[in-house]
Parts: sequence; structure tokens; C-alpha cells
Amino acid sequence: MDIDINTDLGEGYGKWKLGDDEAMMELVSSANVACGFHAGDPIIMHRNAELAVKHGVALGAHIGVPDLWGFGRVSMDIDPAVMGKVALYQIGALAALASSVGCKVTHASAHGAIGMMQRKTPAYMEHIYGAFRSFDPDIIVAPSVNTSGERYAHDHNMRYVGKIFADRSYDDNGLLVSRKLPDAMITDVGAVRERMEQFLSDGTITALSGKVISVDAKCILIHSDTDGAINIARMVRDTIEKNGHRVVPLDKMFS
Amino acid sequence: MDIDINTDLGEGYGKWKLGDDEAMMELVSSANVACGFHAGDPIIMHRNAELAVKHGVALGAHIGVPDLWGFGRVSMDIDPAVMGKVALYQIGALAALASSVGCKVTHASAHGAIGMMQRKTPAYMEHIYGAFRSFDPDIIVAPSVNTSGERYAHDHNMRYVGKIFADRSYDDNGLLVSRKLPDAMITDVGAVRERMEQFLSDGTITALSGKVISVDAKCILIHSDTDGAINIARMVRDTIEKNGHRVVPLDKMFS
Amino acid sequence: MDIDINTDLGEGYGKWKLGDDEAMMELVSSANVACGFHAGDPIIMHRNAELAVKHGVALGAHIGVPDLWGFGRVSMDIDPAVMGKVALYQIGALAALASSVGCKVTHASAHGAIGMMQRKTPAYMEHIYGAFRSFDPDIIVAPSVNTSGERYAHDHNMRYVGKIFADRSYDDNGLLVSRKLPDAMITDVGAVRERMEQFLSDGTITALSGKVISVDAKCILIHSDTDGAINIARMVRDTIEKNGHRVVPLDKMFS
Amino acid sequence: MDIDINTDLGEGYGKWKLGDDEAMMELVSSANVACGFHAGDPIIMHRNAELAVKHGVALGAHIGVPDLWGFGRVSMDIDPAVMGKVALYQIGALAALASSVGCKVTHASAHGAIGMMQRKTPAYMEHIYGAFRSFDPDIIVAPSVNTSGERYAHDHNMRYVGKIFADRSYDDNGLLVSRKLPDAMITDVGAVRERMEQFLSDGTITALSGKVISVDAKCILIHSDTDGAINIARMVRDTIEKNGHRVVPLDKMFS
Repeated sequence: MDIDINTDLGEGYGKWKLGDDEAMMELVSSANVACGFHAGDPIIMHRNAELAVKHGVALGAHIGVPDLWGFGRVSMDIDPAVMGKVALYQIGALAALASSVGCKVTHASAHGAIGMMQRKTPAYMEHIYGAFRSFDPDIIVAPSVNTSGERYAHDHNMRYVGKIFADRSYDDNGLLVSRKLPDAMITDVGAVRERMEQFLSDGTITALSGKVISVDAKCILIHSDTDGAINIARMVRDTIEKNGHRVVPLDKMFS
Repeated sequence: MDIDINTDLGEGYGKWKLGDDEAMMELVSSANVACGFHAGDPIIMHRNAELAVKHGVALGAHIGVPDLWGFGRVSMDIDPAVMGKVALYQIGALAALASSVGCKVTHASAHGAIGMMQRKTPAYMEHIYGAFRSFDPDIIVAPSVNTSGERYAHDHNMRYVGKIFADRSYDDNGLLVSRKLPDAMITDVGAVRERMEQFLSDGTITALSGKVISVDAKCILIHSDTDGAINIARMVRDTIEKNGHRVVPLDKMFS
Repeated sequence: MDIDINTDLGEGYGKWKLGDDEAMMELVSSANVACGFHAGDPIIMHRNAELAVKHGVALGAHIGVPDLWGFGRVSMDIDPAVMGKVALYQIGALAALASSVGCKVTHASAHGAIGMMQRKTPAYMEHIYGAFRSFDPDIIVAPSVNTSGERYAHDHNMRYVGKIFADRSYDDNGLLVSRKLPDAMITDVGAVRERMEQFLSDGTITALSGKVISVDAKCILIHSDTDGAINIARMVRDTIEKNGHRVVPLDKMFS
Repeated sequence: MDIDINTDLGEGYGKWKLGDDEAMMELVSSANVACGFHAGDPIIMHRNAELAVKHGVALGAHIGVPDLWGFGRVSMDIDPAVMGKVALYQIGALAALASSVGCKVTHASAHGAIGMMQRKTPAYMEHIYGAFRSFDPDIIVAPSVNTSGERYAHDHNMRYVGKIFADRSYDDNGLLVSRKLPDAMITDVGAVRERMEQFLSDGTITALSGKVISVDAKCILIHSDTDGAINIARMVRDTIEKNGHRVVPLDKMFS
């Protein structure tokens, strides 16, 4: 099985750092780089494009709502059509910086509060995914499995793969358990490894209830800003390779 | 003679407007659109791209220092290489929005304090023009006549034309008289018309001293945010056409 | 009857202007000045404090959500306790600038989306009015009549008067008709005058249904950024004075 | 001898942290808290005011140029009178948040690029120190020894003490050696301790040349964002106390 290891990177701003972009770029195969609205700035974006080239990592735009202070995690009642333009602005900015180091933006995703905004107001997805496709009809997305993002990508003939989160619990419908609930996060590295091994062996994960469910995923997301993120990324990579699978960047899956 | 009428547009922000983008787009042949750092936002940029398509106006990126409050007119001691990345970010953002309405960014220019920053520190020009070329080697620039910008464009085989300001005085070296001096601005519309007619007839302008100097220009800049800007733009357009010349967008001059 | 004429001022930002602060300051008796988060900046705030002193106008802080681009009109899911601190930050900033010209912030109000946020989530009112009282237990508020703001002010023994809007329609409960509905705005100056005369004569307004309702108000709000704002302000002032009432600044009502 | 241990705190922004405010507040006796322009936000400012109360630390406003991205370290050609208003805005904001937890802003200082801006353009000092005094004529400043700040404070009868930097080299005139030069920073903790012991024993420090110079200081600045900042702060505190001196907050020195 070809698996992409994906993470959100470039989440610093000016003097401030978050996570270790350099170390993560050595371990993942695709990176969603913040584009200056919830985090990120031209220097950080440029640097991450360089690192993506150096390590053969697929470069994606990680777009957010215009709220640096809230790190893009505060829902805003912004007009969905306006949010589409905000998304396009961010992707274009990253694309130009990437192009200057011979790199291309081949995938895109939405950060933070946008997930909840899309669930409450489907027009956000229409406009944001519409912006992705407007930027490049061949752009790749890796929506969370069993979500409206996946359906949108399927219905619009986009290039996509399903994504699962290495360190999050799932419910019986194969959806993420809300972070507001206890047991939403799996903090034990051994438990994360076992889940990854199970998924790699038969394409299933065990939901919080104990039910075993199939997930159609080829992308595993690692959080880059949690303690031990580097260790989890290394473990996930090792687990994939030791079990006879291949780590393949998102863009290479479709070429 | 083919002449481009150029102006800075899209200089509002959110609720705030500056100038009348719609009216100016009907009169000019190329527009330098603010890209969100000194002014402008995704809605305004998108709208101006639509207007550019509608009126056959060449669309350019007008990049600025990251200072909305100062409207990009406050010099900053920002690192020149960083400023290059800031420029690239802005051009890319506009390009993506423009692309969504079938429009291309074909020229670029720098706003406000950057002019003075470039004169004091030539590295700014290297990095900003470098960013323009990185975005697109065929990008067009219209530097002010007799400046280092013109020399840079010439020396690097860029596509360029010289630019003069319709309502500004010139010194004996064909350089703009500083705005800090009296007589820097020509506020009388009749006087502006006479200067334009002189330039169109023999390629000269009369400096403040009375000396007649030749200028190698094919682009006339109109300020969009001064009182009577629309009237001046209409007058310049009329003057060009009544004297048997053609108004030609920047991008069409090179195609 | 003593009546305060109130308006929102200082809603420009940097190069951008909105409304005519100078002209309005000559006509109103209290001003709610934007504090830099949805609009306003240190120069504008300082200038309005100077004008308030010059014209004997009561100076108030008009606090907003941290969103310049959205002009504070986009609801945000910001934590209510955080919003209280954001409010306090803004009031303090205005107070220091005002103090430098011998002026005191004697009232406060909330701008834009906060109204709707408070209706959906009462904790916003608790924290924002709490911030007002923390700044100064004697601070004056002028909540819209028949709202939870009025009840809060009453229940917490705050100094307050009810506020009505000169150019807005009311429903049978004495509440503002939503701007999303037709007939929410009264654009005819003659109609506004008649409503003001009725209110001044017997303390009633006529609701959209035709029902005559009593309103307990001593403050009339004029919008400063609509066309003809200056004329409406002048008319309201004339109407008050011609009918034998007095225009009295908010702070003077309690001294 | 009474000595104040001073540091810059509250230099995070939203999600981003810088230094360890909690740990430093236990060791210093006065804190210069960032006010939201170069760093800091209402939550961080409020939290630091609480910590200052808890630990009996003097609370000061650390004002900066309006440039979050540049962390206030990029010189800007902002008008000095405008910068004075920007300073006042920031102090007032902190004062209101501090007041809500029963804390007072008793000192103020300028951050980052402002030092260099003041040296090049003395009007910055006039306006910034003028803003400090406008906020409170009794405000305390702790200018770097032998600088124009010290002379200004002396000439205007301000409450002040001289400040030295624990980990910086000095030249023969008792001025800081520029960070651009090698040997500007003293990174060896033992060497810092020896310098502090020398200063505490006879009020001298040894310049880079070896010359021993007297410095009239009662305030020692610790950088909070360098590696080992906590250890240096603890060492300085221990050194003061072990040598029979007292750590006294700035505000207590004048009461």
C-alpha cells in the first residue's frame, strides 16, 4: 500500500515559532503550509518550500480564516463567497513563493475553525473547494474520511485520497470524535502504533465503542505542534516501512 | 504613438474606499492593483480583476510594505531579501484571484515608500524586481523615466517602457521634483493638458527651470485618489486620441 | 426634557476616512469613538478627543471585535471572557489618549456584530459590561431601549439612559426591526423629523404596525456614515431645541 | 544597595509563546510587559498583571512600533508625534487591564527598534517620554546608563534610575557595545556573575577594553527570551542577596 504522511507546517509567525518544520520535513511526505492568515509569513512559506524540494515532500496550501490572533481557530461569520476569495489569495501567495524555488503547490486543505464552519454552513466547502479547483483543476485534496469533503471531491471528480488522523479517536460512523469529549486524543505512542499497524494490515480502525470499521484512506495526518510530534512522525514512518508499505507523497500518488 | 494610461487602483480596504475604481477602469489602459499589504483585500482585488477583463485593461500587481495603517508610505528598515519575498507573496495572491476570472497579471510595480527605500538602498530594487522576474520572466515594468528602475530593466532585458506622471513637475535631469518642494504638483488641468500635448507632439516636457527635455516614455501615470482624478484621466485619454495617437494597454504593447 | 444626541465617530483608519468627524462633533452631544479594533487609530482617537473637548461633547469608547477588515460586523466565536479583556484594552487606550488633552471617557458602547453576539450568547454582555464597570464603576451606558443591555444596567445600578435610533423602525415590543427586513430604515428626512417630534412631545414612537408605544429614552442615535448624516443630525438638534427641549451631553445628565 | 531586577515579558501573541512569563515573574522585581503592537495581547497582558500582583513585581508598559511581524525590531520612519500617540495608546490599554486586577502601571520603556530610532531622531524620545509623562507625571523610567534617555529623565525631573544589562558588554564611555560586534553578548554565566559581583561591590563594570568604569545604576536588565534566561535571573537574584543587597521593585524605590 502507498501511504502519504501528512502534516500541518509553517505555523510560526515572525519571531514566533511553532513546531519544528525542519525535523518534520525529513519525516513526512506531504506538508500543508500555513499561508499568512492564521499563521505563516513569506519567509516561513519560502523556507518550507525550499525544505519540501530538498526532501521530496509534496507542498500544499493550508488556508485559514483571517485571524492571526485566534490562530484561525475562532469561527467567523464571514461570507462564504468572500472566504473563497480569501482562500484563493492564500494559495496564490504560496504558489508564487514556491515557484521561486522550483516547487509547485499540488494540494490544499483548510485549517482550524473552517472545519466546523463547513459542517454548519456547507457553502463554505463549495467556495473553498471551488477556490482550490479554480487555482488548479488538478489540485489534490485529502479530506477526512467519511466527510462531506470526501463526497464533494468525489462528486466533482477531483483528485483525492481519504485522510485519517494518527492520534484521534473515531466514532462508529468513522468520524472524528470531537476534541471536546474525553478520549478524543490518543496520547499513548504505543496505542497510536497499534492503530496504525491495524490500519496498514487490513484497512480498519477500532472505534471508541470497540466496533471495527473500514476506512478508505491513503493519507495519515500527524499533528506537528504537539509534544513528541517528531517521535510520532518517525514511528508512523517506521511502521509503514517495516510492514512492507511505501511512504509516497500525495502528488506522486497521481503521477 | 502607442501610449498606455496607467493608474494605481484597488486602494480601499474592507469598508473603506479610496478613489473610484469602476470609473477609472473605463478610462485607463493599465491598472496597478494593491495586493493587501498597504491597501487592497481579496474582494477588492477580485473585483478589479473582473473590471480589468471587462474593460480590456492590463492588470498589474502594485506591491507595498506590510503596513496598512501607514498606507505603505512609511519607510521601513525591512531586510531587502525579505521584502523580495513579501513582493512575491503579493503578486501570487493577485495572480490566483485574477486567474479565477480569466485574467493574467502582466505587469508589476512598487508602491509608496519603496521608491525612497530603493533610492537609499539599491538592494531593494534587486530583490523586488528579482521577485517580479521570478514570478514571470516576461513580466512588464514601467519604471519612472531616467531612474535606476529603468536601468535595471534595460540591463536585465526585461520588457519595459518608461513612465511619466501627468501631474508632476520634472527637474533638468528628467527626474520628478520632490513632493516636499512647492510646484511639485501641477494642479491646473489646463496646464496638465498642455504638458501632455507637448509630450505627444515631440516627446519632450518642460522642466521646472524652463528647460525642455526629451523623455523616453510610453506610459502616463494618473493618480487615482486625488480630487478630479476622473476628469484628468478623461482629459489625458481625449488628448491622446484627439492628437492621433492610440491608447494601448501595457501588455498589448509587447504582444 | 434633556436629550443627548449620540453618534459613532472616528471610524476611519490610517489613510481611510469614514463620515465627517469634524462636522458631526459640532452637532452631537456625545460621541462613541472607535478604538482601533474594528476601526480607529491613535491619531483619529486623539483628534476626536480634542474635538470632544472643543465642542463640549461627551467622549465614549466604542469597542469592537478584533477585525479591521470586517469593520467589526462579522460575528466571531471569540471566548466571552477574552472579549471582555479586548474591550478593556480598547477603553484604556482611548482613556490615555483622551487624558492627554484633558478629556475623560465617560461612557462606553459596543459596535457592530457584538449586538447579535450578545443576543445569542448573554455571556458577552456580562463580560463587556463587566469590562466597562471595571474601567470605571460610574461609567455611563446608553443601551437600546427594551433590551437586555437596559436590564443589565438597571440590575447592576449602572448610570444609564435608554437610546433610540432616529432612522430605524421599531416593532410592537419597542425593539429595532432587523436591517434584513424591508422598512427597517427610515430614509425620508421628513419622516424622521415627524418621529422625533412625536417622541419629544409625548415619549412615544409609532411601530411599523401602526401601534403607538412608549419608549423610555433620553438618547437619540444618529448614524454618522450614511448619506446626509450631517443633515439628519442638524435636523434632530433643531427639532429638539425648537420644541423647547435641551441638548445635554450624556455625562452632564448625571452630574 | 537596593537593586531592581528588570525584564521584558509578555512577548507572546495568541497561540505563540516567547520566554516563560510565569517563571520569570518569580525571580524579577519589575516587568516591562508588551502591549500588543510588537507583541502581547489582552490575554497575555491581563495574565502578566495578575502575576505581577501575585509576586509583588512592579508592572511597566513596554511599548513598541506597530509591527507584529517584525517583532518591533524593524526601524520605521513613523512620524515622531504619531509614535507618541501610539505609545500612549499602548500604556492606556495595559493600565485598564492592570486596573481590573488591582494593579497599576508604574513604569514604562520602549522596545526594539525604538532605541535606534531615538538615537537617529531625538524627537522620538521627546514624544515617547512625553507620552509616558502625559500618562502619569510620576511614572518611573529606567533608561540605559549614560544615554540621552537618562539625560531627558534628569532634565525633566522624572523619577528614574539607571539601568545596566547583565549580559552585555560596555565600551569605555559606559555605553552598550553594538550587538553587531563580536563580544557584544556575554554568554558565560560565570562571567555574568563576576560582573554583577563587581558592580555590586563598588559600582563599576569592566569595559571591553579592560578599562574599569563607574556606572550609576539601580536596575539590572535580564533578557527573558534567551536560552537559560531563568538561570541567569536566578543567579542575579542570588548574587544580589548573597552580597547583602536587597532586590527592590522599581515602584518601591520611590515610595
